[in-house]
Formats: sequence, structure tokens, C-alpha cells
Amino acid sequence: MSESALPANPYGLKNDRFIRALLREPIDCTPIWIMRQAGRYLPEYRATRAKAGSFMDLCRSAELACEVTLQPLERFDLDAAILFSDILTIPDAMGLGLTFTTGEGPVFARPLRSRHAIEQLPIPDPEIELRYVMDAVGTIRKALDGRVPLIGFSGSPWTLATYMVEGGSTKEFAHIKGLMYSDPASAHLLLDKLSTAVTDYLNAQVRRGAQTLMIFDTWGGVLSPDKYREFSLAYMQKIVNGLIRTHEGARIPVILFTKGGGQWAVDMADTGADGIGVDWTADMSQIRQQVGHRIALQGNLDPSVLYAPDAVIEQEVARVLHTFGHGTGHVFNLGHGIHQHVNPDKVATLVNAVHRLSRPYHQA
Amino acid sequence: MSESALPANPYGLKNDRFIRALLREPIDCTPIWIMRQAGRYLPEYRATRAKAGSFMDLCRSAELACEVTLQPLERFDLDAAILFSDILTIPDAMGLGLTFTTGEGPVFARPLRSRHAIEQLPIPDPEIELRYVMDAVGTIRKALDGRVPLIGFSGSPWTLATYMVEGGSTKEFAHIKGLMYSDPASAHLLLDKLSTAVTDYLNAQVRRGAQTLMIFDTWGGVLSPDKYREFSLAYMQKIVNGLIRTHEGARIPVILFTKGGGQWAVDMADTGADGIGVDWTADMSQIRQQVGHRIALQGNLDPSVLYAPDAVIEQEVARVLHTFGHGTGHVFNLGHGIHQHVNPDKVATLVNAVHRLSRPYHQA
Repeated sequence: MSESALPANPYGLKNDRFIRALLREPIDCTPIWIMRQAGRYLPEYRATRAKAGSFMDLCRSAELACEVTLQPLERFDLDAAILFSDILTIPDAMGLGLTFTTGEGPVFARPLRSRHAIEQLPIPDPEIELRYVMDAVGTIRKALDGRVPLIGFSGSPWTLATYMVEGGSTKEFAHIKGLMYSDPASAHLLLDKLSTAVTDYLNAQVRRGAQTLMIFDTWGGVLSPDKYREFSLAYMQKIVNGLIRTHEGARIPVILFTKGGGQWAVDMADTGADGIGVDWTADMSQIRQQVGHRIALQGNLDPSVLYAPDAVIEQEVARVLHTFGHGTGHVFNLGHGIHQHVNPDKVATLVNAVHRLSRPYHQA
Repeated sequence: MSESALPANPYGLKNDRFIRALLREPIDCTPIWIMRQAGRYLPEYRATRAKAGSFMDLCRSAELACEVTLQPLERFDLDAAILFSDILTIPDAMGLGLTFTTGEGPVFARPLRSRHAIEQLPIPDPEIELRYVMDAVGTIRKALDGRVPLIGFSGSPWTLATYMVEGGSTKEFAHIKGLMYSDPASAHLLLDKLSTAVTDYLNAQVRRGAQTLMIFDTWGGVLSPDKYREFSLAYMQKIVNGLIRTHEGARIPVILFTKGGGQWAVDMADTGADGIGVDWTADMSQIRQQVGHRIALQGNLDPSVLYAPDAVIEQEVARVLHTFGHGTGHVFNLGHGIHQHVNPDKVATLVNAVHRLSRPYHQA
């Protein structure tokens, strides 16, 4: 049996719309999940977070990570769950010392600033140094009990490298781009190591129960087109090539998301991924014209629409559905993570509107 | 005489490459100027800034604004000067109370948060409330003495509105987008008033001596394509329609720059502007294919290239020149403002490389 002939739902999922949309198989309506759906906009999340202590303590507890992963599913009719974790677990496991400061975001105690430091970086064994993530994946998968599929994820090598070299968040990317332009060989060494680490990490998530994988390339969009291909996309390609694509008789779809990367959709589709995340600045109808039916699109509502009255949310949902058009291959999502000040009731409006308004697009 | 038949250089400019490139007339080599060329990376700027007091004190002194405008021309063979000022002078003149805090950027004492406040906003008379800017334009133009042309500028209505409604810098644009989605009529009223104010302001700059105009749409790129057209581009169009396009027998070229707007280049060209600013994430060869010869392109080196060794700077300059290709119509620039930690010597390398390496592209 060829891979493409594998059944979409060998797990006996109660809701397999999300996986079917990614594999471009017929569905009844468009599936939706929301980036950062387990997050600060939910009062129950804030309660668990307060109980946990620090953000990393929350990530490190399989039980609490499971608890917050399931919270949005209790409130909303979402079609997928995503592992609660952070994109910076790998650099932390490599020994850079991750903490989160209020207002400033992630900070590494030991940023990378030399060739020697890059050479010395260990590749973490996901079942040892990142075992807390693997335990969370196993716990969540079991707790989901086939309700919806579980998405595992990682940051992209380029995105991880930006934080590791800058030492935290940045607007100018002076250190990482300085490295890229003045010592490209060292930048490539770092990205190559990160590709191996990310591949190992994602494959371990699949073995523990992740049913779809997503690579968040949050900062690929700050590169020029040729540098994007050389320093970000090439390493996502390497990961895609090394991923477990079928497991226990099921296809494991992989989604690439480069924020600001809509113009590079064709290059992203050429990697052989199953889906591309699209932010709200891109026009999905144009992208669909360019990539055809060979890859699914995920997106792309502006997260700020959730500040609008219900009627406007429904109108904007209708617009996004219209830009994708008829047929399977669309996973609805925001174009970026949900904002923390959104009223949760607006998310219910959104989810219900997507399911209701998308049905006509799936009729023969 | 039709407008297009006007002479490019009725001012007797000693160096008219910049204007000629914008009007797509033959030139000997590609002109270059640098966004924020008068800025913190220059020690002499920091000295004048310290002498002035606050940043706004520096903007408000015609003599000191002139001093810093000319500083980069003393060091580098730049082909244009740009008025030293801030994009937020108009909202300040409208009574919002602008200050700059270290690290946090601009802050308005009285952000706009109601329909009533928008209705009450006065349209400033540039020769009264913004007279300090006009005096700076006149002083600089005189001091330049025809050496290179003087660029006047303003923020775009959408960009000004984001700061006015948010009250300062933002990552999420929650307030302005909340207004746009939940009360579009009030957003349009604000943008319409700002269009009038910007048009008056830019025309007054022309009367005082600005020889090219640039509209900085720093935040248009955070909008979805349809919202960009409705809430940002439509108002830049309105301004372009209202601008003085010839003055004292000379064409006054106008450049629109939407950061992250490369995908909308055709729409921007359709406004009838003379040039489009292009950031480094866009491919100028693709844009030139789309817009042809009807508009000039300005850009688009990644500002971070200036952290690289000289040989790499030259190689990246060569790459940018190659993406634009042969012929006139290219103004070299960075894709965004120069970073404050750049070594000024690198700017000399850049400017000289652009002039030297571009000559073959202008030979018949």
C-alpha cells in the first residue's frame, strides 16, 4: 500500500476533520484550531499557571501541561489539540539556561557568541533531556482518548538560532544576522545541529503519540528571499526529509509556518510538507493558485478580528473561507497566536462560524 | 509643456541622480541615500543631540535640525538629504502631546479613544502649528545650496493613526484594529482628517523647498490585503491626488513606502506615485516584472548587512543591483532605517560600492 493510500483515520478518531483536511481528503466542514488556544486569554489557564509557579514549571509538569492543553477543548468545538510547551525547550536542553521575565519574554543565561560555543553544543536526547515534553505528549494523547488529533511541534532551526544567538527577543536581529553575514560557516554549523535536534525531538513526539507535526518559523520572515532559502527553508527541508511520515499505519502530516512567508509559499510547498501556515497579510486565493492541490493551507484570520462584534467576526470568517474557496485542503486558524486580552466568548463565535459557514464549500 | 516633459533639474542641482532615477531618466550610476542617515550611529549626531536636550527639542530647532541633516553628507557621497524630523509631528500638532521615553519610543499623553475625540481633532496649519518643521525645511534647503535634492516626508495616515489610537508603540495593534473592525466609520473619519493634514503638511514642505516627498507607511504591513487597501492605501492615494506635483517648473516626485508591502507593489504603483520603497524581504526583480517601467523602486538592502565585513557588503550590494537589473529607475537604500550600532565606516563602504558597482548597469 502506498503512503497516499493509507487510511486517514486509523486511530479511530472521533473527529478526524483536521487530519483529512491536511491530507486533502473530503470533509463535511472546515476544521479549526487556534494558535496558542491554551493560553492567557482563558481564566482557567491563568488559574493553572498560577498553581504551577513559573511558565517553565508548567511546561515541565506532564499533568499540568495536559490540563491546560485540554482546557480550550472543554469550551470550544475545536478540531485539534496542540501540545502545551514552548518553542525554546531545545536550546534550554542544550544548556543555554532559559527563563521567562515578565514583559521581556524569554532570556537565555548563556547566549551563543562564538564558534567554540557552537561546536560544543550537545544534541539533546529527547527521551533524556526533553523527557518532560515526551511525558506530556504521552499523557495528553491518552487523555484525549481519540477526541481530536494531537499536534506536536518545534521551533524552526533559524528561529531557535535567533533566540540562542541574541540571548532573547530582538527587533533588529543584529547578532544572528551579524553571524550569518560575517561567519556563514558557523551559522550553518549551528543550523545543522539544530536540524538534527529538531528532527530527533519531533520524531520522539510521534513515537509518544503526536499525530501531526508543526514547525514554527516565527522569524524566517525577517530574512531576504535568498537568505530565507539558505538559512531557514533549507533546514526545514532537512527536517521534513528526516521525519517519521507514517507511524502505526497512519500518515503523520507536517505543517510549516513561516510568519511573513506568504510570498515563499511555492518554495515551502516544494519541501514535501503537507501543509503551510499562512498569516493574515497574505492572500490565500493567490497562494492556492500558485501551489494548487498539492499542499493544504492553514490560516489566516487576523487575530485582532476577535476584538470586533460577533457580526464582524462572522463576516471576516466568511471572507477567509471565500479566499480559500471550494473543496478540502483548508485548516482554519488565526494568522498568528491569539492575543491575551481577547474575550473567550469571541472564540466560541469564531469556531461556530467556521463550522457553520464552511459547509457549502464542501458540498459536491 | 506636459508634466512629463519638464526638465529633471531646473534647480541647477550639482547632483541630480536621485531625482533623475525617480523620473526614470538616464543616469551615470545608481543614486543612494539611507533611511535615518542622520542618526544615532554617527558620533557627531549624538553630540548635537546631547546639546539639543530632548529629541523633540532637536526637531524644533531649525538650526540644529539643519546641522544633523547635513552631517552624513559631510562623511559620505550620498545623493539626497532628508529633512530631519519625526513622523509624529502632525499628531503632536493636533494636541496629543508627544514625548519620547528612553527604550519605549514615542508616547502620547492623550491617545484617541472615542468618536468624540476624533471629531474634535483640529487640522493643523503647517505654517502655524508646524512652523518649526517648515523653518527647518527652508534652512536646510538653503544650506544645501543645490548640492543634492532635499526630501520632505510624513507618516502615512494609517501609521499616524496607529500611534494616535494606541498611544505609542505596539506589537498587537489591538486598539487601532479594534476601532477598525468595530467602528470602521470612526476609523475612516480619523484617516480622512489625517489625509487632509498630511497633504497640507507635505505641500507646505514643497513651498518651503522640499524637492521630493516620501510617505512612510511603517505599519501598513500589519493589515490583511483588503484592509490595507481600504485603510492605508486609499488614504495615501488621496494624498497623492492632492499633492503639488510640480513646483517652480520642476516635477516633485513622491515615494510611497509600506514596510512589508512588497506584495502590494502593483496597487501602490497604480496610485500614480513616482517611486515605491521596497524592504529587503521582497524580491525587486519580481516587483519590477510586475510594475514595469512606470514607477521607480527604492531599496532594498537588509540593514543588518552593515554588520558584515566589507567584502560581504560589496557582494550584497552587487546582489541588490543585480535584482533590479539594467537601466534607470532604481534608488539604492536600505530596506529600513540604519541601526544605531553600525560602524559609520561601513556606510562609506556601502555608498562607494553602490556608485562603483552600478555603473555597468547604466551603460547603453
